[in-house]
Amino acid sequence: MKLPGRVTITEVGPRDGLQNESRTIPLDQKIALVDALSATGLTRIEAASFVSPKAIPQMANAAEVMAGVTRREGVTCIGLVPNEVGASNAIEARVDEIAVVVSASESHNRANVNRSIDQSLDSIRGVASLCREAGVPWSGYVSTAFGCPYEGAVDPGRVLGIAATLMETGAEAIALGDTIGIGNPRQVFELVSDFFRELPKEPLRLHFHDTRGMALANVVAAMEAGATQFDSSVGGLGGCPYAPGASGNVASEDLVGMLHAMKIESGVDLETLLSVAWLAEEIVGRPLDGRVKQALARPPAKDSSPDTSYVS
Amino acid sequence: MKLPGRVTITEVGPRDGLQNESRTIPLDQKIALVDALSATGLTRIEAASFVSPKAIPQMANAAEVMAGVTRREGVTCIGLVPNEVGASNAIEARVDEIAVVVSASESHNRANVNRSIDQSLDSIRGVASLCREAGVPWSGYVSTAFGCPYEGAVDPGRVLGIAATLMETGAEAIALGDTIGIGNPRQVFELVSDFFRELPKEPLRLHFHDTRGMALANVVAAMEAGATQFDSSVGGLGGCPYAPGASGNVASEDLVGMLHAMKIESGVDLETLLSVAWLAEEIVGRPLDGRVKQALARPPAKDSSPDTSYVS
Repeated sequence: MKLPGRVTITEVGPRDGLQNESRTIPLDQKIALVDALSATGLTRIEAASFVSPKAIPQMANAAEVMAGVTRREGVTCIGLVPNEVGASNAIEARVDEIAVVVSASESHNRANVNRSIDQSLDSIRGVASLCREAGVPWSGYVSTAFGCPYEGAVDPGRVLGIAATLMETGAEAIALGDTIGIGNPRQVFELVSDFFRELPKEPLRLHFHDTRGMALANVVAAMEAGATQFDSSVGGLGGCPYAPGASGNVASEDLVGMLHAMKIESGVDLETLLSVAWLAEEIVGRPLDGRVKQALARPPAKDSSPDTSYVS
Repeated sequence: MKLPGRVTITEVGPRDGLQNESRTIPLDQKIALVDALSATGLTRIEAASFVSPKAIPQMANAAEVMAGVTRREGVTCIGLVPNEVGASNAIEARVDEIAVVVSASESHNRANVNRSIDQSLDSIRGVASLCREAGVPWSGYVSTAFGCPYEGAVDPGRVLGIAATLMETGAEAIALGDTIGIGNPRQVFELVSDFFRELPKEPLRLHFHDTRGMALANVVAAMEAGATQFDSSVGGLGGCPYAPGASGNVASEDLVGMLHAMKIESGVDLETLLSVAWLAEEIVGRPLDGRVKQALARPPAKDSSPDTSYVS
């Protein structure tokens, strides 16, 4: 079993997580969540989305979030942007990195941003040039890379083609998104293997949702194919707009727990991260469904009993 | 990625699942659950446990369950037994196969059955001889094979030693149990690889709990190491006595969903199995936490929308 020695995690709870909550989280709580996350050892946090609050009210106050959070040495704060206007605002708000999104399936892209894929790629060229001027790196999400809620199967060649276009446009990295949590380990292994065969020098992130319980299995399959970067959200924040009762992103603490049990470093302190998962649950006011958190009764003291620790 | 073309599932919901419920399920509902399961294409069902109802009241009426269920051609009904008395009762109740349990860790075995491992193995020799006389096959669970709630790490050599003893005693197969859901994919790959190296001709089953969300990842790792038989429970029935809020066995429908998405046959009809997961939820009167079931709103009609199907 070929596995890496170290993995880098991008925490997306404050963005992909909170954006799926039915209510808008107050600014101070958004800031508290990002600050708590940046004290766990996580080095990359998607902290805000610079979309119109009319389109996604949950993501209002992006600039205020960025202004309010404590900028910790070694922690990259990422802002998602939908277009050039969002990119300008994000740059002005002093994000460390920008993320853009384009779907691999035409109908999802249209449903998501009311544009064709080509129109999205054009807009991303505009974002890229703003980033270049400002000296801000950016990465590109390819959504529905493992399946589309409207079109079903997605051609891997199409996914890699869009990834290549994004790299040519100046992306620092590509994130393949399993937007509806439908990717399976065989498919992940094959697509990641294809990616590294066709784009061998390009940094790749995998963004898995746990809709069907396959997220951690997909992480392992991706690592076996050479991947070392993953997105996750604390507590398993988030959901799937196409399946109301579904799980969100793979839970950061479940991912870190598995990696550490497998003797793969993440740089994250699991106990501190678990305390943030409890905080996230308080903030959204509903039980979150990360498995590790469910398994551990909220501890009264720092000490945990032997049956709840990771032994291997 | 080396994967099998076909996997055999042993459904353990009626036993490992219901035994962890706080209330005892009425006899007719136990029978209804087994009958519904045996109509899904599942070929192996652990239907009852022939323990003393004083020890585990949830498992009362084992003989009545066996007498009441419709014995379907091609479906093996398995009864778990704690000792020779249980084995006699199971044989009299016409089980197709018997299962016995011994822990890989001394303190868990003592906590579980108030005996040493050697005493358990002695008792299993008695069970084996009753089975031989009656012409009933039996298999042996090695519990805490991936970690113990009391002792932490468990020596793989010890696990394989107990497995070898069980095979010498006449077991048809070994099931390695991750009793507390703490095994990780690297560990699973290594232990299963070791098993097939040391006991190359012996049939092996893996029994994963999803306590920390790693069960499906562990299934994939086990398949990569050559395993083709897995336990699961419909709806994710069950729990972990050492972690009250924890998930149970890996959900059968999540397992089947993943296998089919990976183009691995199981012989199980996923749609029918999902209907049994809903039934199981009704029977236990609480939400179960299989991921696929959570993702799908209970369908009003047979038709499911494209975003909720497995596309790959």
